Amino acid sequence: MAPQGMTKAVMDRAITDALECLRICEETLSYCLHQGGRHVEAEHIKLMVDCAAICRTAAAFMARGSRFNAEISRICAQICQACAVDCAQFSGDEQMMRCAEQCRRCADSCTQMAAVAV
Amino acid sequence: MAPQGMTKAVMDRAITDALECLRICEETLSYCLHQGGRHVEAEHIKLMVDCAAICRTAAAFMARGSRFNAEISRICAQICQACAVDCAQFSGDEQMMRCAEQCRRCADSCTQMAAVAV
Amino acid sequence: MAPQGMTKAVMDRAITDALECLRICEETLSYCLHQGGRHVEAEHIKLMVDCAAICRTAAAFMARGSRFNAEISRICAQICQACAVDCAQFSGDEQMMRCAEQCRRCADSCTQMAAVAV
Amino acid sequence: MAPQGMTKAVMDRAITDALECLRICEETLSYCLHQGGRHVEAEHIKLMVDCAAICRTAAAFMARGSRFNAEISRICAQICQACAVDCAQFSGDEQMMRCAEQCRRCADSCTQMAAVAV
Repeated sequence: MAPQGMTKAVMDRAITDALECLRICEETLSYCLHQGGRHVEAEHIKLMVDCAAICRTAAAFMARGSRFNAEISRICAQICQACAVDCAQFSGDEQMMRCAEQCRRCADSCTQMAAVAV
Repeated sequence: MAPQGMTKAVMDRAITDALECLRICEETLSYCLHQGGRHVEAEHIKLMVDCAAICRTAAAFMARGSRFNAEISRICAQICQACAVDCAQFSGDEQMMRCAEQCRRCADSCTQMAAVAV
Repeated sequence: MAPQGMTKAVMDRAITDALECLRICEETLSYCLHQGGRHVEAEHIKLMVDCAAICRTAAAFMARGSRFNAEISRICAQICQACAVDCAQFSGDEQMMRCAEQCRRCADSCTQMAAVAV
Repeated sequence: MAPQGMTKAVMDRAITDALECLRICEETLSYCLHQGGRHVEAEHIKLMVDCAAICRTAAAFMARGSRFNAEISRICAQICQACAVDCAQFSGDEQMMRCAEQCRRCADSCTQMAAVAV
């Protein structure tokens, strides 16, 4: 029932990264809204809302050992990757850089999770 | 365990209104982001994200017959009421008026739910 | 930015079905827990929790016009289909049959959504 | 808009505890379902689902600096406290004890959050 060994280590890492990613995405969402200008471009804000939502969903699926771990990790990785690229465009903005970094880390962890969960 | 009679009718109405409210809040969030200007003011956008989130949470608590129905309905009513007032300021904007109306309806239903759930 | 014509009709239907599906899954979750026995088998309960969660997530993504509509609809259809099959095994149980039927309907709507969203 | 000093420290702690609490509640939900018997009693399972849901919601509200931080922290504390008491009844069960402990910690952090947020 509970995952063992390497799979468990990969899953623990992916859950931790997804929780941290949803946290920084919610913080950065608020940061962007208060910045205004380019930071509140519609597709950018929607992407951060999407990213927080899928990380929240994926973390819960993984933590309860859902049979859909692989599928949910894969789409979580895809959305986090898109969010990382989008945030990375705000070069010189420390908050955006930290968000980009965590999104990239979560994308990597979820990609590994999807690979071992199959 | 399932609620009976009048309580059930009040609960069914509150669940329906909360689901419809989360839907229109997500739609209106996107609408506002594409409008820009006053529609993307930080506190306004955050309030719509809050409203969608609490409606989602409250609908689920009510549908599964949580023992915290009264508490969650009460805070849902409070947030929906604040969102209704905020949206109603955009007079002449049809999308905002429809959002305000549904938020008010959900606030009323949840207030009734909180009253009968006690 | 808002979808037009046929796509909009398909999306409206998919959002309505996902919201109705999360509602009946939460109700049925509670029903199963109170029934006990075969109704509380671990994988069955987890599947209903998964189904409610992905419907909630998918409805929100669709309603705010996320760029990941196709991907989220596809996984929503997959989980709803699995939940429909699982619930359909409880033949003669009216609540389970209604849940199975709505899960199947949501799986169909989300499959159509994924097709037109590409 | 971002909180400062002591308030920020209290909020960071509350977000961390809520995220950790939703994680252990999802894990323990799965654990209970696989245990069966007294662990799958309806009100117990529903309480753990409620607790995971409110922690998820509260963490997001706090991280994006919602104006409803105090209200959401207060109800989160209440539900976590109830879940802690419920889990603590399974004396001698290590997983339940760890869940009880984290729920209690989150209840404390959210109570403090509600106090400083007012």
